[in-house]
Amino acid sequence: MTQVTILGAGDMGTALATPLAANGHRVHLWGTHLDREIIAVLDAGGPHPRLGTPLTPGTTVFGNDRAAEAISGSDVVVVAVTSSAVGAVIGNLAADLAEVSAMVTVAKGFDRDPDGAILLLPGVIGLTYSGPVVAVGGPSKANEVAAGFPTAVVFAGGDPSAVATCAAAFATPAYHVERSDDPVGVEVAAAMKNAYAIALGIADGLERATGHPHHNLKAALFPLAVREMGLLATHLGGRRDTVEGLAGTGDLQVTITSGRNRLLGERIGTGEPARQAAASLTRGGTTIEGHAAVGFGHEIATLAIAAGALAAGSLPLLDALAAILTGGAPPLQTLWAAIAGE
Amino acid sequence: MTQVTILGAGDMGTALATPLAANGHRVHLWGTHLDREIIAVLDAGGPHPRLGTPLTPGTTVFGNDRAAEAISGSDVVVVAVTSSAVGAVIGNLAADLAEVSAMVTVAKGFDRDPDGAILLLPGVIGLTYSGPVVAVGGPSKANEVAAGFPTAVVFAGGDPSAVATCAAAFATPAYHVERSDDPVGVEVAAAMKNAYAIALGIADGLERATGHPHHNLKAALFPLAVREMGLLATHLGGRRDTVEGLAGTGDLQVTITSGRNRLLGERIGTGEPARQAAASLTRGGTTIEGHAAVGFGHEIATLAIAAGALAAGSLPLLDALAAILTGGAPPLQTLWAAIAGE
Repeated sequence: MTQVTILGAGDMGTALATPLAANGHRVHLWGTHLDREIIAVLDAGGPHPRLGTPLTPGTTVFGNDRAAEAISGSDVVVVAVTSSAVGAVIGNLAADLAEVSAMVTVAKGFDRDPDGAILLLPGVIGLTYSGPVVAVGGPSKANEVAAGFPTAVVFAGGDPSAVATCAAAFATPAYHVERSDDPVGVEVAAAMKNAYAIALGIADGLERATGHPHHNLKAALFPLAVREMGLLATHLGGRRDTVEGLAGTGDLQVTITSGRNRLLGERIGTGEPARQAAASLTRGGTTIEGHAAVGFGHEIATLAIAAGALAAGSLPLLDALAAILTGGAPPLQTLWAAIAGE
Repeated sequence: MTQVTILGAGDMGTALATPLAANGHRVHLWGTHLDREIIAVLDAGGPHPRLGTPLTPGTTVFGNDRAAEAISGSDVVVVAVTSSAVGAVIGNLAADLAEVSAMVTVAKGFDRDPDGAILLLPGVIGLTYSGPVVAVGGPSKANEVAAGFPTAVVFAGGDPSAVATCAAAFATPAYHVERSDDPVGVEVAAAMKNAYAIALGIADGLERATGHPHHNLKAALFPLAVREMGLLATHLGGRRDTVEGLAGTGDLQVTITSGRNRLLGERIGTGEPARQAAASLTRGGTTIEGHAAVGFGHEIATLAIAAGALAAGSLPLLDALAAILTGGAPPLQTLWAAIAGE
């Protein structure tokens, strides 16, 4: 029995206490300043405001000002803050994290280094933390993880021993952990599936707006999304088979059933201007991770094409998403052209 | 403008008149003895009983006794009868089909040759028809094809000229046709996606029965299903990338949203004994294609493992489906063991 600290008391951070506690670990759950209300409710013994479930026994909550105390004594620290905050949070806690053996990130997405270059989140963490980072991918709705329902994920990192240690801390009969040596593949899939979920959400919105089914369109978008995630992953040094597993195909499958990325697409599909839909959904400070991922992914692809590393036009669906989100391109025609090559 | 004959007046056969008519072809729609009521309704000018839409202008319907007349003068004939009837129908019409330039099959599945060996449907057609056969795969709900909504499919065959001719007959701005030289990959995916849809339907049924969500389980099953379809396809001489495209990943995506294969899984997931659920759904002579595909696929895998061509245990989800459907194995535990390797 050891102690594990989770940074971020959102849905997924809090949910991960379930497998950890099932393995007998003490869990320290630390909330950022955005989690103040959540921490207050949990501290008072109430259910998590979003998950709706009470805190897993064996979990201690820590407010934003008690990070050092929350981290002290933990070998493994889990990063579960919103992706755009990872750099700032880990940078601020660098001194407290110096002794930690390994970090596990369930946050996913891209950010930039101080020179403006695009990094995957393990790279962002690596700017101030020098130990091994393990990336988590795969289809995980937090409420199901919290409830202990069957969930299969992949833990990936360049340090097999850290991957094994972290996987062992989390793996339970209900929380199955595959190990992988391809963190790039996992991170690219984890980030980009949110982007592509917007496209499939648009098909849902077209159905809502017209009353006409668009199952064939939606299903045709799916393998194209997986293919393009594979191209981006291999371009960045990851593997296609990682994308075709739990981290890409699996996570895309769950991401298109609900959530804010799908919802952004749905609203665009119903005819709402993309900028207006995105602005309305990001009110209150929450970000739509897929919207940012379209921008980062498209920038990576554009640079790769300019450098001759990817063929022009090899990511038509990502081009279509960028045109729809930032250029106001008509959703149905633009998505369909990505499939039909018109 | 040429004439195309469609054998089978079910949903898909009838729906394919839409793209053909859009290209200016005359369509002859022939009904089997099972389609008698459909033909009578269409002949009287009514809407197709299952599609709910009227016959596409330019289409002539032919009853079961008018096959020779329906086929005469057509260069291309489309096979759209239920998969288990393909051998008998094509065998009976062998003389009428002798002059046909190419056959297109949207029927999918396996059957046996007279010696009991398992054949894919193009092979079944090839027992009595010596011309080129083009296999169609990809996510196609018939009602959307009939209505002219965006649909992307793949036409595959060993004769590139026949593939090109048939693709050109069908391709419209709304019915996008990819060409492929991998009919085995397309056919294995087209057949087996019905089998694996049963597994994902079971996750739906578990949700219904318990009130607990099982999105994570369902999404974890998806990439495993694609992986196993890829193994079967490559074993039979097809390609993995075909399975990962429209024919496998895409068609599985649409197949798990509705239909009888998914429904069989759902009923098993709610706790109904598998044999009882299958028997109840096959009353009235209709078959559940995925149920048959589990049996054929499992037999192929068993033979391949015995011959050393596939590793034992390399298709755990297919093993699980066979155990659930024929051995009464408990659905949740058995599916989960296929994922978690317990």
